[in-house]
Amino acid sequence: MSLIENLNWRHSVKAFDPNKKVSEAHIEKIIEAARLAPTSSGLQQFRVVLVSNQAVKEKLVKGALNPECMKECSHVLVFAAWDTYTAERIDKVYDFTTKERELPKGRFDSYTDKLKEIYLDLPNATNFAHTARQSYIGLGLALAEAAELKVDTCPAEGFDNKLVDEVLALDQLGLKSVSLMYVGYADDARDWIKPMKKVRIPREEFVIDVK
Amino acid sequence: MSLIENLNWRHSVKAFDPNKKVSEAHIEKIIEAARLAPTSSGLQQFRVVLVSNQAVKEKLVKGALNPECMKECSHVLVFAAWDTYTAERIDKVYDFTTKERELPKGRFDSYTDKLKEIYLDLPNATNFAHTARQSYIGLGLALAEAAELKVDTCPAEGFDNKLVDEVLALDQLGLKSVSLMYVGYADDARDWIKPMKKVRIPREEFVIDVK
Repeated sequence: MSLIENLNWRHSVKAFDPNKKVSEAHIEKIIEAARLAPTSSGLQQFRVVLVSNQAVKEKLVKGALNPECMKECSHVLVFAAWDTYTAERIDKVYDFTTKERELPKGRFDSYTDKLKEIYLDLPNATNFAHTARQSYIGLGLALAEAAELKVDTCPAEGFDNKLVDEVLALDQLGLKSVSLMYVGYADDARDWIKPMKKVRIPREEFVIDVK
Repeated sequence: MSLIENLNWRHSVKAFDPNKKVSEAHIEKIIEAARLAPTSSGLQQFRVVLVSNQAVKEKLVKGALNPECMKECSHVLVFAAWDTYTAERIDKVYDFTTKERELPKGRFDSYTDKLKEIYLDLPNATNFAHTARQSYIGLGLALAEAAELKVDTCPAEGFDNKLVDEVLALDQLGLKSVSLMYVGYADDARDWIKPMKKVRIPREEFVIDVK
């Protein structure tokens, strides 16, 4: 099926079947799509925290806007972004790229110097606003990959970020949670939205054609 | 080709062939992928501004970090998000959904009341930070669709938002530009990044496995 067919197939599931687990192979492919996401300056400013342990999920239930999804889904992917930019983080990415591409050491120095000039003096909150945005590219691609595999998902915001960050000890990794992606298989009997028509605003309203 | 194969195929093009245009059919499919993007509360808080007119592109060149791409690409998609949430915007989406799903009028009133409670008292800048994030889901899916069609792209930030908003008269539509997506076909001779290895941080570093 094409990407567009897959996007038409998917919907944001309202109830998961707690007895159906997603295979590790499928989870790895979903994560791989997120890993391949393009990001600003190629910095990959976000990570995916993979949670399937039921006890950990139960700890997160209190902070979730859709506690049933948290409890009953197979896996939760937490998209978490760098809490700020640092020289070390920028250098690490470009040192790795230089090595992987077998380029001379320092090949990207003028570029990373420019990035440091842009980001290092900005407040952490401004930098995090930027890193968080990038994570949505990964979220979108992970949702698309799940649809290709006919795995159900529900992306979610509006949760208690502080609780999620604490339970997952994200501050120790220099990360802050941004969004969640519940992964599993819908419980058709309780997933009230499944039979409903997918609605998007019409193309004419969505696109502004500049002539 | 699978989504993962397409994501491995794509790269952010550094130079487009000014003589190669992307077909309207392909452009429509790329836009369709963005239109199908899931968004927070299904509000589709972003739009795509489609620019192919060379005179308009020339006006945008001054504000672009990659002026050559702006000049030489076939089409530019400008992802622009709602400048804030309003009751009218929220109601319009849910009135349309109610109609499309043939549900009784007012079916979503309690839900939209809740959304209004969350957003309407927040500063515009806070609301825009949220709507802008959603647009990246669409950006990611549009990039993936282009890759499926073997159309080259380069996503871009870091442009002069004020100039872009002015040239495209986005404030009159209640929108603010967030990101650009250059669409076209690479000029292989000048696209220095094309022969280089695609680099992403390893899976083990990208994923935090919570046991």
